[in-house]
Amino acid sequence: MQLGIVGLGRMGGNIARRLMREGHHTVVHDRNGPAIDTLVAEGAKGANDLAALVQQLDKPRAVWVMLPAGEPTEQTIAQLADLLEPDDVIIDGGNTFYKDDIRRAQHLAERQLHYVDVGTSGGVWGLERGYCMMIGGEQAIFERLEPLFATLAPGEGDIPRTRGRSGPSERAEKGYIHAGPPGAGHYVKMVHNGIEYGLMQAYAEGFDILKTKASESLPVDQRFDLNLTEIAEVWRRGSVVTSWLLDLTADALVADPQLGSYSGSVSDSGEGRWTIDAAVEQAVPVPVLSSALFARFRSRQQQGTYGDKLLSAMRFGFGGHVEKSE
Amino acid sequence: MQLGIVGLGRMGGNIARRLMREGHHTVVHDRNGPAIDTLVAEGAKGANDLAALVQQLDKPRAVWVMLPAGEPTEQTIAQLADLLEPDDVIIDGGNTFYKDDIRRAQHLAERQLHYVDVGTSGGVWGLERGYCMMIGGEQAIFERLEPLFATLAPGEGDIPRTRGRSGPSERAEKGYIHAGPPGAGHYVKMVHNGIEYGLMQAYAEGFDILKTKASESLPVDQRFDLNLTEIAEVWRRGSVVTSWLLDLTADALVADPQLGSYSGSVSDSGEGRWTIDAAVEQAVPVPVLSSALFARFRSRQQQGTYGDKLLSAMRFGFGGHVEKSE
Amino acid sequence: MQLGIVGLGRMGGNIARRLMREGHHTVVHDRNGPAIDTLVAEGAKGANDLAALVQQLDKPRAVWVMLPAGEPTEQTIAQLADLLEPDDVIIDGGNTFYKDDIRRAQHLAERQLHYVDVGTSGGVWGLERGYCMMIGGEQAIFERLEPLFATLAPGEGDIPRTRGRSGPSERAEKGYIHAGPPGAGHYVKMVHNGIEYGLMQAYAEGFDILKTKASESLPVDQRFDLNLTEIAEVWRRGSVVTSWLLDLTADALVADPQLGSYSGSVSDSGEGRWTIDAAVEQAVPVPVLSSALFARFRSRQQQGTYGDKLLSAMRFGFGGHVEKSE
Amino acid sequence: MQLGIVGLGRMGGNIARRLMREGHHTVVHDRNGPAIDTLVAEGAKGANDLAALVQQLDKPRAVWVMLPAGEPTEQTIAQLADLLEPDDVIIDGGNTFYKDDIRRAQHLAERQLHYVDVGTSGGVWGLERGYCMMIGGEQAIFERLEPLFATLAPGEGDIPRTRGRSGPSERAEKGYIHAGPPGAGHYVKMVHNGIEYGLMQAYAEGFDILKTKASESLPVDQRFDLNLTEIAEVWRRGSVVTSWLLDLTADALVADPQLGSYSGSVSDSGEGRWTIDAAVEQAVPVPVLSSALFARFRSRQQQGTYGDKLLSAMRFGFGGHVEKSE
Repeated sequence: MQLGIVGLGRMGGNIARRLMREGHHTVVHDRNGPAIDTLVAEGAKGANDLAALVQQLDKPRAVWVMLPAGEPTEQTIAQLADLLEPDDVIIDGGNTFYKDDIRRAQHLAERQLHYVDVGTSGGVWGLERGYCMMIGGEQAIFERLEPLFATLAPGEGDIPRTRGRSGPSERAEKGYIHAGPPGAGHYVKMVHNGIEYGLMQAYAEGFDILKTKASESLPVDQRFDLNLTEIAEVWRRGSVVTSWLLDLTADALVADPQLGSYSGSVSDSGEGRWTIDAAVEQAVPVPVLSSALFARFRSRQQQGTYGDKLLSAMRFGFGGHVEKSE
Repeated sequence: MQLGIVGLGRMGGNIARRLMREGHHTVVHDRNGPAIDTLVAEGAKGANDLAALVQQLDKPRAVWVMLPAGEPTEQTIAQLADLLEPDDVIIDGGNTFYKDDIRRAQHLAERQLHYVDVGTSGGVWGLERGYCMMIGGEQAIFERLEPLFATLAPGEGDIPRTRGRSGPSERAEKGYIHAGPPGAGHYVKMVHNGIEYGLMQAYAEGFDILKTKASESLPVDQRFDLNLTEIAEVWRRGSVVTSWLLDLTADALVADPQLGSYSGSVSDSGEGRWTIDAAVEQAVPVPVLSSALFARFRSRQQQGTYGDKLLSAMRFGFGGHVEKSE
Repeated sequence: MQLGIVGLGRMGGNIARRLMREGHHTVVHDRNGPAIDTLVAEGAKGANDLAALVQQLDKPRAVWVMLPAGEPTEQTIAQLADLLEPDDVIIDGGNTFYKDDIRRAQHLAERQLHYVDVGTSGGVWGLERGYCMMIGGEQAIFERLEPLFATLAPGEGDIPRTRGRSGPSERAEKGYIHAGPPGAGHYVKMVHNGIEYGLMQAYAEGFDILKTKASESLPVDQRFDLNLTEIAEVWRRGSVVTSWLLDLTADALVADPQLGSYSGSVSDSGEGRWTIDAAVEQAVPVPVLSSALFARFRSRQQQGTYGDKLLSAMRFGFGGHVEKSE
Repeated sequence: MQLGIVGLGRMGGNIARRLMREGHHTVVHDRNGPAIDTLVAEGAKGANDLAALVQQLDKPRAVWVMLPAGEPTEQTIAQLADLLEPDDVIIDGGNTFYKDDIRRAQHLAERQLHYVDVGTSGGVWGLERGYCMMIGGEQAIFERLEPLFATLAPGEGDIPRTRGRSGPSERAEKGYIHAGPPGAGHYVKMVHNGIEYGLMQAYAEGFDILKTKASESLPVDQRFDLNLTEIAEVWRRGSVVTSWLLDLTADALVADPQLGSYSGSVSDSGEGRWTIDAAVEQAVPVPVLSSALFARFRSRQQQGTYGDKLLSAMRFGFGGHVEKSE
C-alpha cells in the first residue's frame, strides 16, 4: 500500500522504514529537509510541503501525521483537511487527547474526510519489535488501512499463546486492534499509559525500600547489604513481578546500581494526567494511578513545597516545633 | 491533691503550674537542676533524685512521668517501680506506644503497682487553655486521680454545647475521658494524631493549589492573583473548613504570606506512624492518613529519591527519554 | 440596596430573608409559584417570570441567580442577558465551574453586562450564622454590591482575632473577600470544598480505626471498648483537631453512636472533582484530596468492582487462590 | 543431595518432586498420612513424625519446613531444634516475617544450629517453571545447600539476557540469590509481594476505567464499546505494560470477560502488610503500595464502612444532604 507520512522524528521515520521493508510505499514530509533526504535515500518519495505530499498520493489517500500532540498536530490536520478530497483519510499517530479526536472526526466528516487515531506503545523499540497499536475509526476505513497496521505490528512472534485461545490468530494476537470509533484508540492508549505509571511507581517504591534497607545510615544490626542488581535479575526468573519494565530495570542496574546519571526529576505526559481526569469524570477510584502521577509531580519540586512549609508553620503554631534539618 | 512529677520540660513544668494554681501540691524532679529550682520558686517541693521524690510523697503515691517516649520514659518507670510500694500509681503522660503501656501495666501489676497512660493534646497552649486528656487505666485508679485531671483539663469554657446533650456536664465536656484500660489513653491519642496529620495535609494541599494558581510562572490569562492570607481569614468565618488548625494557618500567613522562614522539611512523630501500623493490623483502609504521613517523609528528601531515579531510568529504557531540568 | 433573586430554594430563600432583615429590598422569582408567595409574605416583591423581575428592578440592576450549577444556571443567565441592559450585573451564587464563569463573563462583557461569581460556604446555617463568601468580579462592581455582601456575611462575631492583625476589621474578618476577577470566587470555593473532603475523610478514617478497635469480632485481649461519642466530645476541648466538622461529628454521635440511619453511600459534587482536575492541570500533588474523593466513589459501589474481580482473577491465576467470603 | 521436607501441601510436595526428578533424595513428613504415601510412591522416604524424619537423614542434616507462617512453622521449628544436632540446618520456605527469622536464627545459633530463610515466588507454577528464590542465611550454609537451590530454580531458560551482562551466568540469572544473612531472603520476598500488590492494582484500576467507559449506564455518545479481552491481548504484544500478570489477565478475560465467577473480595497476606510497616519504619513514602493494600481491605467491606457513614452524617450536619441510593 501507499502511505503519506508527515513528521519524520524517531517514530515517524521508523514507521516509514518498517513499512518500506515489507514493500509498502511512502511519501514523506518533515519541516526539517535533511530528515526527508534520509528517508528518500532509503526508498521513500519526498515532499517539500503538504500540498506536494497530497499530490503524490493516489486516491483515496491516507496520510499519517506523526507529530507532537497539540498545536503541531492540530494545525497540520487543519491544513491537510484543506488539501485532501472526499474519502481520503487522516491518521493521527501521536499522543492526542481522545476528546480532540472525537471533535476532529466530526469536523472532518462534514467534509467527507475520514479520521483514524492510532495509539502506539513500544516507542523506540518499534522498528525492531513492531508497534503495539490501538486504533480508533470507522470499521470500513480501519479495514482499508489494515495492511499497513499488520505490517507495523509485531505479529505473533514467540510469545506463548493466551490460555483458552485457539484457531487462527486474531488481530490482537498480532499486536493491533480496532478499539472502536474515532477517539477509542487514543482512549485505550491513554489508559495504557496510566497503568504504565502505576507499574513503574510500584517498582520504584519497592526498590526504594530495598535501597533504604541497605543504607549506611542505618545501624548495622538493622541493615541488610542488599544487591539490587541481583534482586532485579532474579525476579526476572519465574517470579510474579516479571515484566518488560523489570527487564529495563535490570538493564539499568547492571549499567549503574547507583543510577548516578539520573537526578530523579521525572516528567509526565498528557496521557497520565488525562487518565486521572477520565477516572474522575467516570467516578472510578484510582488511588494507585493518581499516586503515581503525583509522585512525578513531587519529584520535580526539589525545594520544599508551599504546602510543606505550611505544615511546618502549623506545627510551630500548635506545638512550638522548630524544623530540623535532616 | 499531691502529685510527683518527673520531667520539667515545657509540658511537665506547665502541668505542675496549672495544678499548683488550683491548690494542688507537687513534688518535682528533673535531671536538670535549675528546672527544679524554677518550680520550687513557684511553690513546688523539689527532689534531687527519684528516691527523694518518692520519699516526699504520701501513700498511696502518684508519680507523673513527663519525658520523651522510649528509653527515657522506660528507664524512669523501671526505677520508680523499684522505689514505689503497693497501690502506688505511675502515670505516663508522654507519647508512648500503646502496646508498651499494656506491657508495662502487666509488669507493674505483678508488683501491685498501678499504671495510667495519659494522652494529651494541646501541648504548648495547655497552661492557658487546659489540657485535653485521653486516659487509660483501671477505673478505680482513674477516679482516685480525677481531681488532678479535672484541674488540668480545659473545663467547659465557652464552647457551645453539643446538640442533644443535656443535664450536668460529663467528663468529656470538661476535656478529659477515661478511655479504657491501660493503653487505651495513648491509643486514642495516637489516632488523634493520625487525624491531625490528615487534616494538616488537607489544608497544605489546598493552599498549595491556591499558591500555584497565583504563580508568576503561569501565563497571565491562567493566573489568579490570590491573597492567601485573606482566604485563610475568610474561611474562619462561617465556612465548613473552620478549625483551630485553620486559625493557626491564618496566624502564620499574617506573619508572612510566603512562609519564608520555613524550609518545608516536616518531621513526624511516633503516633503518626503507629496509626498506620494500627490501621494495617486492623485492616482499615486509611488512604488519607497514610498519604499525609508519606508527604512528610517525602518533604525531608530534598534530593531526588532512588525510586525517582529508577523511574527516569525506565523512561530512558523504553522511550529514550532524557531527564529535563525544571 | 435592591437585589433580584432567581431561585428560592433553601439558599436563595434565606439569602432574601437575611437581606430583608437588614432593610434591603428584594424582587424574587422561582419557577415554583408558592416559593414566591412565601417570600412575598415576608416582604419581598414577587415576579412571575424573569422579564417581570427585571422590570421591577432599578438600574443599574443586580440579579442573583441561585440555582443548581450547569444547565439551570446557564439557561437562566442566557435569558437574563437578553433582558438586562448595559451596566447591569448578573451574580451567580451557585456551584459553578470557574472556567464557565470566565467564559460567561467574557460573553456578557461584549454586551456591557457585568458578571460576579460568589462561592458560598456555610449552606444551611447561613441564615443564622451568615454566609462565608468568596467573590470574583470586577473591583468596581464588587464595591457597588458590597453592602449586600456585608449584610449576608457573618460579621466579626465573637471569633478571636487572628494573631498579628490590628486596626479596623478587614473584609475577610467580616466573612467575605474579593478574591479576584470573574471565576476567582468559585475557584477559591472549589479549593475550599477540596479541603473539606480531605478533612472529612481524615476524621472518617480515624473514627473507623477507633470503631474497628472496639469491634466485638476482635479477640477480647486486643480490643478496647472505646466510646466514640465521648472521644469526639473530648477532642472538642482544647485538642489540635478541634473544628466545626468535629462539632458536627459530636452532634451525630450523640444522636446515634452507630450512625445506623446512614448506609455510607456518599455523594460528591463538582467542586471536589474539579479540585483534582485543577491540581492535575497545575501539577500539584494532592494525594489526600484525591484519596478523599476516591473514597466517596468507592463508597457508592456496594458490590465488588470489576477491578477487584480482576485482582481475584489474577490471584487465582498465579497462586490458585480461591476467594474467601469474609 | 538429601533433604528432609516437612509439610507436603502444594508447595512442599512439588519441591520434593522437582528435587527427586533431578536425582536428589528426600525424606518427607506431613501430619496428613496420605500426603506422605503419595510422595513415597514417587520415590521419597516417608517419616511418620519429626523424630523419624531426623533419624533417616545423614549428618549434617537439612530440613525444609514448608508450612503456613506463624504458629505451625514456629512450633515445628521448635520441635526440630530439640531433635537436631550441631551443624544441622533448618530451612523455612514459608512466608515468615523477616524479624521472626532473625530472632529464630539467633536462638538456633545458641545451639549451633543453622537457619536459612527462603522466599519463593512462582507458587503453583513452580514444578513446571521452577521456583524463583531469595535466600537468607550464612554464606557457607547457603553454599552447602546450593545444589538444592540450583535444582529448584528455573535456570536460564529462554529469557533474553539482561543488557550489559556477559560471561558465565550468575546465580540470579538461574533464578536464585543469596540475599544476605538470616531474614534477608524473606525481606526481599516481602518487598516483592508489596510490588506485586502495586502492579496488580495498577492493572485493576486501568481495566476498571475501561470497563466503566463501556458501561451501558453511560449515555451512548460518551460510551466506547471496548473489548477488554482484546485490549489485554494486544498489550501483550510489544507494549510497555507487558508482564506475566498481564498474561494472566488475558487468560482470565478469555475465559470470562465479565469475571462473573468472582465477587471481588480480595484477600491479602502478611507480606503486603509488612511491606507497609517496613516502609513506615524506614520512612519511605509508598503511596502506591499502600493504596494497593487498602484497596484490598476495602474490597472485603461490602457494606458501607463506619467511616463512610460518618461522612454522610457530617454532610447531613452542615448541608442537610440526605443520602441517595445509587
